[in-house]
Amino acid sequence: MDSLKELDARHKKFVAERNWQKHQSPKNLVMALTGEVGELVEHFQWLSREESWQVSGGKKEAVAEELADCLIYLTRIAGELGIDLVAAAHKKCESNEGKYPVEEFQDGDRRPHEYKDNY
Amino acid sequence: MDSLKELDARHKKFVAERNWQKHQSPKNLVMALTGEVGELVEHFQWLSREESWQVSGGKKEAVAEELADCLIYLTRIAGELGIDLVAAAHKKCESNEGKYPVEEFQDGDRRPHEYKDNY
Amino acid sequence: MDSLKELDARHKKFVAERNWQKHQSPKNLVMALTGEVGELVEHFQWLSREESWQVSGGKKEAVAEELADCLIYLTRIAGELGIDLVAAAHKKCESNEGKYPVEEFQDGDRRPHEYKDNY
Amino acid sequence: MDSLKELDARHKKFVAERNWQKHQSPKNLVMALTGEVGELVEHFQWLSREESWQVSGGKKEAVAEELADCLIYLTRIAGELGIDLVAAAHKKCESNEGKYPVEEFQDGDRRPHEYKDNY
Repeated sequence: MDSLKELDARHKKFVAERNWQKHQSPKNLVMALTGEVGELVEHFQWLSREESWQVSGGKKEAVAEELADCLIYLTRIAGELGIDLVAAAHKKCESNEGKYPVEEFQDGDRRPHEYKDNY
Repeated sequence: MDSLKELDARHKKFVAERNWQKHQSPKNLVMALTGEVGELVEHFQWLSREESWQVSGGKKEAVAEELADCLIYLTRIAGELGIDLVAAAHKKCESNEGKYPVEEFQDGDRRPHEYKDNY
Repeated sequence: MDSLKELDARHKKFVAERNWQKHQSPKNLVMALTGEVGELVEHFQWLSREESWQVSGGKKEAVAEELADCLIYLTRIAGELGIDLVAAAHKKCESNEGKYPVEEFQDGDRRPHEYKDNY
Repeated sequence: MDSLKELDARHKKFVAERNWQKHQSPKNLVMALTGEVGELVEHFQWLSREESWQVSGGKKEAVAEELADCLIYLTRIAGELGIDLVAAAHKKCESNEGKYPVEEFQDGDRRPHEYKDNY
């Protein structure tokens, strides 16, 4: 069974057993996702670029927990809306691969926002 | 192969081919995740609870695309930090299952924030 | 003295006295704002529309504190970038007033996202 | 008249004239704030620390616009809840000034999250 479907099934059961299903509207779940992302951000806001690769120990565990919360809510939103998350991600990858042709980024040091009409 | 690991490998290759790897610090990726979540929120902010379950057509496709972006960045952050996202999510589920005992939520209509010391 | 300028001066002094100025890049401050907004969201995520108007007591105080944090970081970002926040807000109001003509919203119940090309 | 109260009055009138008042629940407004913060983040996500101080031209104008949107929604949330935003911010400053004593940050290079029990 796909790992994300299994995760969503587990969390859905968790919710159902506590009578929380009626609160799991996509609107509410999107807010819950936002809250978890906010907690994730707080671990990185004062770190330098280099430090952000070196989180370890208790901080790394805390970050893993926030990432976990994000993934749970992300799969729940997709679950409530009947969206296949992994398929959508591959579709998006394909679109990105076309939008940013490899050959345009071989010289210099151009980031996505420096290409075409993006600021 | 696990669907998330496959997705991360694909996006990592996409990044490497465009010389963007140096910009993929966890700090930057966390910001990129935040931006995508913001776009997701915009689709739901003026909707009622009921309407949020009924997104369809072009809006549903746009939502799927934002969810996809979120998943891509989430897996990238985990990838850069060497965190097993699905394992972390199951660990978090286990913790939540203990934190909110089923029997405490059989009567009435208590939401997570109404339990114990949470507001 | 304008209340926002006074607030920014106070927080800037707070930062300088603790040798944190070098960490107050707009990039970091934007992340800090995001974190505070995430905390704000957490107070509202499981509330119904109606309940969200009725926050009171300790929860209202906690919400006021999050709003305060958001305002502090918002003024700090503007301060670091030399942007006049209130002037920018009035300019945006003017733009919005033109973008959504009053007469287009007198009948029915059309929200911003239901007007023109927005979803 | 205080600049923030004036701004809130203007935006409240804008909303009332378009029959949007019923949609301006604190819950929805918090989501709208989140969306604007997400747009703000997108301008900074791939920038280095130094570059983030140097935004100029069209990008600076776009950033000013996002900051403006954030301020508008922040004042609207406070307005709907009857919270005095500036008073709350000064209260928070006072609390922060006590929480991080100046003398603790004179040596070395300690950031907020490196003090006491914070990660």
